[in-house]
Amino acid sequence: MKEIVILGSTGSVGRQSLEVIRRLPGRYRVAGLAAGRNWRLLAEQIKQFHPRVVSLAGPEEARELAQHLDGGGRPPEIHWGEEGLRAVATCPGAAVVLSAVTGTAGLEPTVAALMAGKNIALANKETLVAAGELVMGLAKAKGVRILPVDSEHSAVWQCLSGAPPGAPDRIILTASGGPFLHEPADLSAVTVEMALAHPNWHMGRKITIDSATMMNKGLEVMEAHWLFGVALDRIQVLVHPESIVHSMVEFVDGAVLAQLGVPDMRLPIQYALSHPGRWPGPVPRLDWRRAMRLTFLPPDTRRFPCLKLASAAARTGGTMPAVLNAANEVAVQAFLDRRLGFTGIPVLVERVLDAHRAVSGASLEEILAADAWAREYAQRALDREQLPCCRRD
Amino acid sequence: MKEIVILGSTGSVGRQSLEVIRRLPGRYRVAGLAAGRNWRLLAEQIKQFHPRVVSLAGPEEARELAQHLDGGGRPPEIHWGEEGLRAVATCPGAAVVLSAVTGTAGLEPTVAALMAGKNIALANKETLVAAGELVMGLAKAKGVRILPVDSEHSAVWQCLSGAPPGAPDRIILTASGGPFLHEPADLSAVTVEMALAHPNWHMGRKITIDSATMMNKGLEVMEAHWLFGVALDRIQVLVHPESIVHSMVEFVDGAVLAQLGVPDMRLPIQYALSHPGRWPGPVPRLDWRRAMRLTFLPPDTRRFPCLKLASAAARTGGTMPAVLNAANEVAVQAFLDRRLGFTGIPVLVERVLDAHRAVSGASLEEILAADAWAREYAQRALDREQLPCCRRD
Repeated sequence: MKEIVILGSTGSVGRQSLEVIRRLPGRYRVAGLAAGRNWRLLAEQIKQFHPRVVSLAGPEEARELAQHLDGGGRPPEIHWGEEGLRAVATCPGAAVVLSAVTGTAGLEPTVAALMAGKNIALANKETLVAAGELVMGLAKAKGVRILPVDSEHSAVWQCLSGAPPGAPDRIILTASGGPFLHEPADLSAVTVEMALAHPNWHMGRKITIDSATMMNKGLEVMEAHWLFGVALDRIQVLVHPESIVHSMVEFVDGAVLAQLGVPDMRLPIQYALSHPGRWPGPVPRLDWRRAMRLTFLPPDTRRFPCLKLASAAARTGGTMPAVLNAANEVAVQAFLDRRLGFTGIPVLVERVLDAHRAVSGASLEEILAADAWAREYAQRALDREQLPCCRRD
Repeated sequence: MKEIVILGSTGSVGRQSLEVIRRLPGRYRVAGLAAGRNWRLLAEQIKQFHPRVVSLAGPEEARELAQHLDGGGRPPEIHWGEEGLRAVATCPGAAVVLSAVTGTAGLEPTVAALMAGKNIALANKETLVAAGELVMGLAKAKGVRILPVDSEHSAVWQCLSGAPPGAPDRIILTASGGPFLHEPADLSAVTVEMALAHPNWHMGRKITIDSATMMNKGLEVMEAHWLFGVALDRIQVLVHPESIVHSMVEFVDGAVLAQLGVPDMRLPIQYALSHPGRWPGPVPRLDWRRAMRLTFLPPDTRRFPCLKLASAAARTGGTMPAVLNAANEVAVQAFLDRRLGFTGIPVLVERVLDAHRAVSGASLEEILAADAWAREYAQRALDREQLPCCRRD
C-alpha cells in the first residue's frame, strides 16, 4: 500500500481526492494532510483517514484542532504555517504528494516535496506557471515524476500514454469558455454571483473566476508546455462548451487522440493515482444512449483578453508568468471582494505586466520576489488607479 | 528496409497503400503485388515499385501482362489464380502482408500468409468475420501480429496503444450512418447511384453499399471482437454522421479515448506500417480554426435491419457469420446488378441465415463449405423467390 500526502485537503480538489481514496481501500494510505483555516473539516478527515502528520494555517487553528480531536486512535503530529506545510510535504514514507493548495502558496511546499524525492500529483497549476523550468529541472534531477491532476493535462497525458518517444506535434487544450462565452454582450455587467455559476464544473472560487475570464486556460497552456515539453506555439486552445472532450493531442501523421468523460475531477484525480493502470470508475459513464453533440470553436481573444495576456507573458518567459499569475490572484480576489469589476481583471493584470522587467533563469527566491512585487504593485494600483469597478447585484 | 506484399493492389485500399508507400521512401520495399483482372494498372504498379512476384486472376490476364511489361528492369515472376495469390502471400522475405482483397476471396491467401509467419495488415474484414477464431488462433500460434487497417479498428488500436494489459471495458465503433441515415423515408426507393454516393468516404463499391445498409458496421463489430478480445455485448455502435471520430474505447474508470482525423484511408494504412511510431502525415490535418460540430446518436436498427442480422449471426457464432457474409456478398452484387432492391438485401440475407444450421469450432474447409453453400442458396433464392425488386433510375 502506497502512502500519500495531500496539501490542501479541505479545498475542492483535496476533498475530492480523499473521496477517491476512500473508495479505493487497500490502494493508498493517507500519511499527511495540510489544510488552511478549516480545522473542523480537517478534524473530520483525521478521524476518517488517521494521518501521522497534519498542518494548518496558523497556531490558533492548530490549537483548536488539538483541543477538538477525538480520543480514538493515536493523534497526529500537528504543525502550522509554512514550516508545517513543509513538514507535511516532506513526510517520511510518503511516495506521492498531491499538491492541491490554491495559488502561489502551493509552490514552496511542492518544491520541498520534490527536494525530498516525492512524486508529485500536481493540481496546483501555479507551480509550473511560476517556476516551470526550475520545477521540471528539479524533478529530472531527483528522478521523480510530476503527475497531472488538472482534467486537461490528465487528458493529454492519457492520450500520450502509448505514444512513441518524442513530443506530440500539437496539444489542443479544450476550454468550456465559462459562463460568458456568448452572453452578456457587455462583460462589464458581470457580477460575482454570475461569474461563480460555472455551467459544467464544480470547482473552487478562484479557478471558477479564472475559468470565466479564460485566464485559467492561459495558465494551462504554460502548464502543458512544461509538463509535456511542447513548444508554446504548438499548444492551441479550443472552446468546447460541453466540457466532454477534456483535451486532445495531434500527431505528425495527422491523427488526433482525445480523452472524453463526464466533467468530474475525481476521474483525473484517480488516474493520477492508478496510472499506468486504471481502476473501476469513480464517476458515472458518458451516456451514449442519448444523442450527443460536441462543438468546438476558436476562442475569442478580444472578448477574453486574459488569454492574450497569458500568451504574451508565456512568450516573454522568465519571471513574467509568475508576475501574471500573482497579479491575477490579486485581481480575482479584488473582484470577489467587489473592489474591482469583471473587466477590470485583465486591465489590472496588464498594468502589472507592463511595469515588470522579466528576469530569466530565475531562482526560487527571485521568482518569489517577483511574485511579491507583483502583488504589492497590483494592490497599490487597486488603491490608487482608476479601474473598471464592480457591479452590485 | 522492410518488405511488404499487397494483396488486392489495384483495389481502392491497395492503390492508397501504394500511394502511402511511395511517400515513404526508404521505409518499405514492395516485394509482391496481387491484383484481379486489372492487368493494365498492375503493369503501371510494377513499373513504379518493381516487385519480385505478382499475380492476376487468370491465365489471360497473366499473358496480357507479360506481353505488355516494359523492358526496363528485371521483370517479376507472374502467377495467376488461387495458386498465384498464395505465391504472392507467402513471398519469401516479406515481413508484412497487406490483405486488401475484397470479400471471402481474401480469406485463404491471408491464412496462407499467416501459416508462412507473415504479419498481416488486415483490410479484408471478411477474414475475421468468417474465420475469426481460427485466424486469431493461428496468429497466436505463429507469433505474428494482425494489424488493423480499417479506420475504425485502427482508431481502437491507437486508443489502446498505451492501455494497461487486459481488454478495455467497452469499444464504441462509430458509423457514418451512410447516405440514408434519415432520408429517404422509404428505403425501397433507393437506387444504385444513390447508394454509391457516400457522404464522407471514397471506398470500393461493395463496402460503399455495406455502409449504406450498415451491414459494414455489423461486420466490423465481429472484427473488433476478434481483434481486441472484447465480448460482443461490450461493443457498441454509435452513429456519427461527420466521420471525424473514427472510434472510441471506454475504460473501467469511465474515461474514454477517441481517435479523430479527416476521413481518409491513407491515415490508418500508414499507421499500420508505422506502428508503434508515427511518420509525417499522408493526409491533411483537421482544421480547428473553423467551428466544428460532432454529433452522435444510437443507430436505428429498424431502419437498418442488417445491424440486427449481423448481431444475431455473431451471437450464434460458428459458421453463421461466414454465412451472413457470403449471403450479403451475393445480395450486394445482385443489388449492384439491379436484380434486387435495396431493401431486398436484408431480406435475402435473413432467408439464408434462417436456412443455415451453424457448426461451431469449424475448420477452414468447413467455413469455406458454409460460405459456398450460402452463396448457392442465396443465388437460388434470387432466381426463384419473390424479393423486393430494384428501382430503375
